[in-house]
Amino acid sequence: MSHSPDHEFALRAREIGEAGRFLYERGWVPATSGNFSARLGDGKIAITVSGRNKGALSADDIMLIDAEGQPLTVGKRSSAETLLHTGIYRRFPAVGAVLHTHSMNATLLSRQFGHALTLAGYELLKAFQGIETHDTQMVVPIFPNDQEIPRLQGQVDEWLDQQTAPVFGYLIAGHGLYVWGTSVADALRHLEAFEFLFQCELHAQRMTHA
Amino acid sequence: MSHSPDHEFALRAREIGEAGRFLYERGWVPATSGNFSARLGDGKIAITVSGRNKGALSADDIMLIDAEGQPLTVGKRSSAETLLHTGIYRRFPAVGAVLHTHSMNATLLSRQFGHALTLAGYELLKAFQGIETHDTQMVVPIFPNDQEIPRLQGQVDEWLDQQTAPVFGYLIAGHGLYVWGTSVADALRHLEAFEFLFQCELHAQRMTHA
Amino acid sequence: MSHSPDHEFALRAREIGEAGRFLYERGWVPATSGNFSARLGDGKIAITVSGRNKGALSADDIMLIDAEGQPLTVGKRSSAETLLHTGIYRRFPAVGAVLHTHSMNATLLSRQFGHALTLAGYELLKAFQGIETHDTQMVVPIFPNDQEIPRLQGQVDEWLDQQTAPVFGYLIAGHGLYVWGTSVADALRHLEAFEFLFQCELHAQRMTHA
Amino acid sequence: MSHSPDHEFALRAREIGEAGRFLYERGWVPATSGNFSARLGDGKIAITVSGRNKGALSADDIMLIDAEGQPLTVGKRSSAETLLHTGIYRRFPAVGAVLHTHSMNATLLSRQFGHALTLAGYELLKAFQGIETHDTQMVVPIFPNDQEIPRLQGQVDEWLDQQTAPVFGYLIAGHGLYVWGTSVADALRHLEAFEFLFQCELHAQRMTHA
Repeated sequence: MSHSPDHEFALRAREIGEAGRFLYERGWVPATSGNFSARLGDGKIAITVSGRNKGALSADDIMLIDAEGQPLTVGKRSSAETLLHTGIYRRFPAVGAVLHTHSMNATLLSRQFGHALTLAGYELLKAFQGIETHDTQMVVPIFPNDQEIPRLQGQVDEWLDQQTAPVFGYLIAGHGLYVWGTSVADALRHLEAFEFLFQCELHAQRMTHA
Repeated sequence: MSHSPDHEFALRAREIGEAGRFLYERGWVPATSGNFSARLGDGKIAITVSGRNKGALSADDIMLIDAEGQPLTVGKRSSAETLLHTGIYRRFPAVGAVLHTHSMNATLLSRQFGHALTLAGYELLKAFQGIETHDTQMVVPIFPNDQEIPRLQGQVDEWLDQQTAPVFGYLIAGHGLYVWGTSVADALRHLEAFEFLFQCELHAQRMTHA
Repeated sequence: MSHSPDHEFALRAREIGEAGRFLYERGWVPATSGNFSARLGDGKIAITVSGRNKGALSADDIMLIDAEGQPLTVGKRSSAETLLHTGIYRRFPAVGAVLHTHSMNATLLSRQFGHALTLAGYELLKAFQGIETHDTQMVVPIFPNDQEIPRLQGQVDEWLDQQTAPVFGYLIAGHGLYVWGTSVADALRHLEAFEFLFQCELHAQRMTHA
Repeated sequence: MSHSPDHEFALRAREIGEAGRFLYERGWVPATSGNFSARLGDGKIAITVSGRNKGALSADDIMLIDAEGQPLTVGKRSSAETLLHTGIYRRFPAVGAVLHTHSMNATLLSRQFGHALTLAGYELLKAFQGIETHDTQMVVPIFPNDQEIPRLQGQVDEWLDQQTAPVFGYLIAGHGLYVWGTSVADALRHLEAFEFLFQCELHAQRMTHA
């Protein structure tokens, strides 16, 4: 069954709102930080309006943009980081949702580690689509924070160009995580797995350094 | 009063669903991880379907298997780890429920300690059935993680063969905890006690190593 | 306005049940641990039945005992630690409620510190009845755990005999906290303050030892 | 649209009550600690009555004071710290709300750091009104705790006199945080950002000292 674009937008907006309440409750999008998007069947993208409380999103807080990130909803503005969302959709035709969060674990790890964080040997790596064993490793790159978003996206693109294995997310230092999946539910599962593994790494690092 | 098998399945499925919401809320089964089961009066086992969100289980997410782990519900598949559940039921006739969780404390401890974790001197040890004093110790074995479940179950069986005192759970390194009890409520009480004691040990270890 | 004993029992039982849900949610009475009581106008005491889940107390989980700790409700048994409750009521005529909790912070601190924990310089000390400045200190004694409750109460009495300033609680090593107040609400405020200060001390200790 | 003073008081009282429930849930105003206020259009101030549980504020727990902190609601008394609220309103005509919290992070940091805490390089600094880049730093002063509130306010005034950049909050050692904004929502966003950054600093400090 296919839906009209309006109906599809409403469905995705509701999923984004529910994801927002869940993520806010966890403390992963404090103080109006973070932004979320989902791609519709016609290639347009539903995305959160800039500066809204992510724990209390209503339909009015979600807007429509085109594949280049231009607003299609009159009178609304998405975050400057919209280009990081469209960059992921452009690269991966199967991606249906992108979540950007600001958790404390992501903030701390991305400031303490250098250019990348390696996650290895965890059973929970199997939460990522296509990973079938704990006996593997995933490298999560950490990009320096940059208010000049096109320049930041350039760095992300350069990294993506070099990847041969599937990738699911990246960190921006002192800022947060970008994570994606085929749907909002899929991206949420990846996000939960990343946050769990980040917290494990942070604790393990504390033990090692102690 | 005894119930019809269908009614009993419905009761156990509801208990499993409620346990799932509780455990998910605690962060102990993130990103669709974990699996739960309960044994019915006729020896069949109600168990979670593979890959479902443990925080939002409905009747549709619970299936029936036989004592050997073969599916009895058409079109549904339980986790590869089903054999670890049936291994416990086979060994202990009084066990009515098995819970498998992936908490951060269990993940961290099971990676940092070697072959076993010893819990000693805690009042909360009295939460385990039959323990009447804090002045005792419980050894929780830690098995290396293995995607080959029959081989892993072989290691568990070897350990169980050597036990003379009652046992309530074991850890799999970088993976999580298996815990059991005479009922879902009983297994939950044991799980809560283990998680509390794991967190105590993790903190204590941090103090000692610091 | 005074209430009939039955009505008063029902009121106190409801307060105890609400306190239980609050404390369980915080993780301070895991795995059926803890016990709570409130004194009625006629000197009898409403107290939790042994072994119940403190996060789901109903009227059926609260019973009546006399001032010596003897059960007045047929067919129900309170915890062996009931004598620690009656010991506090006997000593302090103004005390109307006693709460016993098993938080992780209390468990850890009571195992790491020796015979007492000193809380000093915290603004939150003003949450204790009669304390008007942060520029003070409170000594919380830590008694060795003992399954022989009359002997443990003997140690508590010995300590109480020596006090000249008001006291609000004590720790039992590896076990938990006893705290009291003129009412359930008053005891809860003292408990919240203790738990906050315990967590502060645990963090501070980690910094110092690191 | 302007509201009658009574209606405006009711609106602000409701916002304060909701903020209280949110902040209590987070553990930032334990054991009746903290106090909150909002300024009305006519310059009067709605403020919490002293000693109330901040997680369960009703209209009865909010009173009216004048710009000098004198009570305008008969039979009610605001906290001794009311002068710290009026000091902020007097200084900043655009400020519409002041929140005072007692979180563990604020308590710990304010005891461990000396005279000030510097927050630098965090993306979340952009949550503060007017800050457009992570590449900045904010200095949060830490005043020694003092039960003599006019003397403490004197120290705050001295610090405020020296500021040229916008300021959003200050710490009192072993006590807590004062934070403000143009509205209750604005002050809450600043508070969430401060608490997040305090927790980051506390973790980072633990790594460094370890």
